[in-house]
Formats: sequence, structure tokens, C-alpha cells
Amino acid sequence: MSPHDRQAGAAAAPGPTVPPEILARRLHRVVDWLAADQLDAAVLCPGSDLEYLLGVSHGTFERPTFLLVTPDAVATLLVPHLEADQYRNALTGQDIDQIGWADGDDPYARAVAGLGRARRVAVSGTMPARHILQLQRRLDPECVLVDDGLSAVRAVKDTWEVQQLTLAGAALDRVHARLPDLLAPGRTEAAIGQDIAEAMADEGFADVGFVSVASGPNGAIPHHTTSTRRLEPADVVVVDISGPLPTGYHADSTRTYALGTPPSDVSTAYAALTEAFDAARHAARPGVAAGAVDAAARDVLDAAGLARQFLHRTGHGIGLEVHELPYITPGSPAILQPGMAFSIEPGIYFPGAWGARIEDIVVLGETGAVSVNHRPRALLQVG
Amino acid sequence: MSPHDRQAGAAAAPGPTVPPEILARRLHRVVDWLAADQLDAAVLCPGSDLEYLLGVSHGTFERPTFLLVTPDAVATLLVPHLEADQYRNALTGQDIDQIGWADGDDPYARAVAGLGRARRVAVSGTMPARHILQLQRRLDPECVLVDDGLSAVRAVKDTWEVQQLTLAGAALDRVHARLPDLLAPGRTEAAIGQDIAEAMADEGFADVGFVSVASGPNGAIPHHTTSTRRLEPADVVVVDISGPLPTGYHADSTRTYALGTPPSDVSTAYAALTEAFDAARHAARPGVAAGAVDAAARDVLDAAGLARQFLHRTGHGIGLEVHELPYITPGSPAILQPGMAFSIEPGIYFPGAWGARIEDIVVLGETGAVSVNHRPRALLQVG
Repeated sequence: MSPHDRQAGAAAAPGPTVPPEILARRLHRVVDWLAADQLDAAVLCPGSDLEYLLGVSHGTFERPTFLLVTPDAVATLLVPHLEADQYRNALTGQDIDQIGWADGDDPYARAVAGLGRARRVAVSGTMPARHILQLQRRLDPECVLVDDGLSAVRAVKDTWEVQQLTLAGAALDRVHARLPDLLAPGRTEAAIGQDIAEAMADEGFADVGFVSVASGPNGAIPHHTTSTRRLEPADVVVVDISGPLPTGYHADSTRTYALGTPPSDVSTAYAALTEAFDAARHAARPGVAAGAVDAAARDVLDAAGLARQFLHRTGHGIGLEVHELPYITPGSPAILQPGMAFSIEPGIYFPGAWGARIEDIVVLGETGAVSVNHRPRALLQVG
Repeated sequence: MSPHDRQAGAAAAPGPTVPPEILARRLHRVVDWLAADQLDAAVLCPGSDLEYLLGVSHGTFERPTFLLVTPDAVATLLVPHLEADQYRNALTGQDIDQIGWADGDDPYARAVAGLGRARRVAVSGTMPARHILQLQRRLDPECVLVDDGLSAVRAVKDTWEVQQLTLAGAALDRVHARLPDLLAPGRTEAAIGQDIAEAMADEGFADVGFVSVASGPNGAIPHHTTSTRRLEPADVVVVDISGPLPTGYHADSTRTYALGTPPSDVSTAYAALTEAFDAARHAARPGVAAGAVDAAARDVLDAAGLARQFLHRTGHGIGLEVHELPYITPGSPAILQPGMAFSIEPGIYFPGAWGARIEDIVVLGETGAVSVNHRPRALLQVG
């Protein structure tokens, strides 16, 4: 007995629940998208796709749970009897059928039967191999599975989601506001990371997603987490924090701190980084390609002679997943739309020496990008 | 920037690391198994399969990381450049190549090229659809994917793993030992669950996997977590707790507590439950089918007129995953082997009234099952 729910055990306080009329609208958006993309059905599994349409998603193990959606707006939740109770409240008042299956049934055959003569079926990108291969064995071999789940629909946030991302950003800003008190020479990255995890719990996060305290030379490793390294008096420290509120919506923000007065080469490079951030933020508007936003940041760093210091893409979408569509990558032709939410996070990395990154989450409004993070973006001098 | 590692953020203390000679032996076991099962290769993804062979597994998002293993004992880790650093230490001194790939490369084509003319390939059961469908598009259509990953190998624990499961069981016993102080009329299940989560952190758990405090009528719901229900003076309370230590190995144990003196019908049914537990534990020995262990518990409850109260299988394997092979299900022909570790957890459920369950993790020795849990299994009277 141990299904994993999103909210770790009993520790997290429940968040606000998604209003039923929002859930109903989401189902209609999915149905419209199936028609527009000439898909015959979607087969979704527990995780963010179910959370999006049901407002909740419960843990699952080897017994599959599938939500089937077809273009005639019929949605059916196929769920093990043993786990059916936990979805009952979520389905009340929604136009979604529930079918229980028992040990000994073939849930894959039942799912495939529910798809009729479908030829193109969207499946959740997170559906595990152990389920998808079982579905494939029972599907007509001509049937094509498309692995994006609801990504395209979920990339454009509804108002409720924009609110949740805004609250998550504000909560994470409050965590970053504590950093000047936590960063001090002699403290280990790990101890600071622990304090950040506790601050996140205080500020209402359901989970610690990712905490990076990358000091001195570790700052040059974009995916560094923490280590036993002790901060030194002249360190530059990159602090990247992300995690979900109990609603499931994520915050993700990076600030760079300087212990003591930074040397002039650091200040100069950081000024270019700030300029790159601003350029990307201003470039981000409806109708623009994601690649153009990436280029805006990259061009600034290029002109400053820092092209080779910028090791990664400029950003990633965020919502129920910390990484989702749209990706702000070089050359991406994906057209940005109002309601999209993503990070803008140019970084510069000097191997063996130091690094810096600035990261905000922005939401695209009708005319441009609105940040959900409001901490100063300057190289923050502490101590 | 937010890869999820197993250890939540910086909060968890690192556990002991797997000795390199154990890792080398595991790789040889996998190679032997490929040959015995006539598999041409295994393609494994981050998660418990990688953790098993590398001793660590790091977070991953849309960029795939694959560990390819072929029967000639060549193992290759294909990993995004950006995430390569975090595996470098793990690979030092191991006979595993590392190949980095950059944004713009086709990692799926590289993985498929590494498989040569493979016709039967094992893939991790947890590999997400977004990766497996990409692999399939590039594989010869004749190639059959088998979705069990390393399940069969991992079902038989090595000595190091038995030690970790033993330590996890002991840590969870210490959590259960606190329960008599936490259970009191008037307290909510949720508040007790929160205390349990804190006790788990105190006892060194890396994460709260699952906490169920199922009081009174909620005890009749096997997968109940917690609720705002307040305990009442004569409640029977089922407390099921699981989670991993920082090594990744899980504990999972259930005890049932009685507030005040239980009525005689409860005592009588509970006595049968204890007998069912003991029968299953005694039936569990090498060479026996898993179904026979399930039947041993079921027959006792059947004879006591409680067949319809026992709603689920008798147990599940446990290790780096909280549910893995072997499953102790009705009729299962799977033959138990020394080194297998699994739960024995018969339960009885009286809808609307009460429920009870006893759960230990046992490891199969050469002659029989040895429990890693040592708390009293009686209906524990508290308050």
C-alpha cells in the first residue's frame, strides 16, 4: 500500500482547488484541439495531464489508470477498483464517466476497445513503457501514437493557472529575499541548501523541486546542486530554486549573489547578462517565434564576446511541470501566444572560475511578457 | 534549470554509496540475464534501473539519458553534455563508457545505432512515452521491445541491498514506535500524518513516500491517506507508512492500533488476521510459488469467514522501488528465490465500520522469510 500522490504524504497543506467551470472549459479546449490536430482520441495517464483535466492526479503503480478523451467530448476514466474512491470527488459534477477494473481484467484491452477505430491517438508523454507497450500490442498496427499528450493545450494557460503561477512566483521571491541572511563565508552550499528547503516549506511549497547553491567555480556548472564546498569571502554564488505549490504549479527563479565587492571583470560580464535578460524579455511577445527570443539574449552576449559562455537555451515553459512547452531554443519556429508562461534565464559560465544566471518566469499578456518574479535582478552584494 | 534528483533538493543527508565491486557484479548479472533471456540489449533510463547499475540516478527532463547494455558486457551511458558532469564520479573505475550528446544531435538515432541489429531489446518499464516512441520510429519494425527493464535481475537482492532494506525497516520501526504518543482522541488524521512525516525526517528518511492514518470507517479503505477526521475514543486506526532512505531503498510497514479496549468482534477478526500473516510468512520460502504465499493468508481468512474482507493481494516486492517484483498475488506461478524481498500484508476491511492490516517486509533467506520489521504485530492498544 503506497500510492504516491503529488502532495508528499500528509505534510503539505492542500491548495485551492480548480473551479469546476474551469475544468469543463479545459475539456472543451482538449476536444477542440483533437479536432484541429486530426486526432481520433487522447489516452492520458496520471500526472500533469490528468491533473489538468480533473484538478487532481493520484499516485499509480503497476496498475494502469487511463483517461480517454474522444472528439465527441466523451471522457472516460478507466481506473483500478482499488483506487477508484480517490477520484470520485474529482469527477462529481463533471461530464466524465468512471469505469473501474478489477485484478484479472485486461485494462489495456478495455482502453483499446474505448478507442474504436482510432488511427491517430495522442498519449501522455510521461506514460511509462510498461503501459504503452501493452496498449500497442492490442492496437491496430496502423494506429499512430503521438507522444505529446496535452502539451500543446497546456502551453497556453487559463486565468486560473496564471494566478497560480503568480502566487508561486511571489512565494519564491520571499524565499530569495532570505538569501542575503543565509549566504556567508564559511557556510557550506549544502547547509545553505537545507535552509532554503526549510524556507520553501515555510512559504507553502509542497515540495523542494531543485535547489542549486553554486558557489565560486561551481557556478560554472549550470546543473550543479549543492556540495560540501564552503563559501569563500569573494565568491559569486548562483542560487537557482524551483518547486511546486500544493496546487501543482511551479515557481523557478535564479539570482546571483556576490560576497563582497565583485571584481570589475565580473561586473562587466554581469552587465551584459542583465542586458541579455532584458533583450529577451522585450522580444517575448505574441506572434514572435520562440527562437527570436533566444536570439535576442544570445545576440547581446555574442556582441559582448560571451557567446561561448552561454551554454544552454534561453528558457522553458512552466506550469504543472517545471519544464514543458514552449521551449525557448535557438532557431525554434514555435510561435508564442498570449497565456504562454516560460522562463527567461540567460547564463554565463567561466569553467573553473565563476558563473552567473538571471531567471524569471514570465507570462505572455496581449502585448508582452509580464514577470511573476520581482526580486532585484542586479548582482546582489551580500555580507 | 531544475533536474529532479532522487534526494529532494539539498535537504537529505547523503547515504552510504554502493561499493564499486557490487556495481561490477550487478553489471555481470545483467549481462548473464540478457544471455539467458535471449535479449540482444537493454536500454535503461534514469530511475531505479540506472540507480541499480550506477549507484546513482540523476534527474532528467525532455533530454533523454540512456544506459545501453549488450551481452558482450559493453555498457554505454548516452547523456546530454549539460548533465554529463553529474555522472562522471559514478562512472570512475567502472567499465562503462560515457558518450555526451549536444542539443541539435539526435540522441535516439545514436542509441539505436549502438544497438546494432538487435531484435529483442529490454527497456526500462518506467521509460516515458516521449522517449520510447522516438526510439521505435528509428528501430527496425521487427525489433521487439520488452518492457520489464531490469525487474527480473533486481528482484533478487544482493547482500548490500539486504543491508539497506534492513536499515530501512529498522528506521521505520522507530517511527512506528512513536505512534502510541501520537494517537489520541480529538487529533485529526492529517495532524498525526504531519507528525509521522516529521518523525520520518528525524529517522533519516529522504522522502515521505506514503503516510496513511486511516481511523474508524476510513480504515476500511485500503488506499486511504489522511483526512480532517478527528480520532474518536473507540477507534481502530490503521497506520501504513513507507518511504526511502537516502540510499534509495524503501521501508514499508503497517500496524493497527486500538484506542481503548477493542470490542470482541474486532479482537476475534484481528486474531484471524494475525494467523493469516503468520501463515503467509511461514509459507514464504525458496522454491514456492508466490501464489502459494497469497493462498496461505487467504485460506486462513476464508476459514474465518473473512474472505470477502480481504480486498487485495498479499504483497509486493520492494527495493529501489516501493512496488517491484515479485508480486504476491492469487495464482501467481512466479517461483520465490533466496534474496527476494517483499511485503506480507493481509488486511481486512469492513466498509463503513473499521479495518485492519499487518504489514512487514521480509527477505527470503536460504530456508525461509526473515522480517526486517520487529514491532509487535498485535492490535496495539493506546491511550
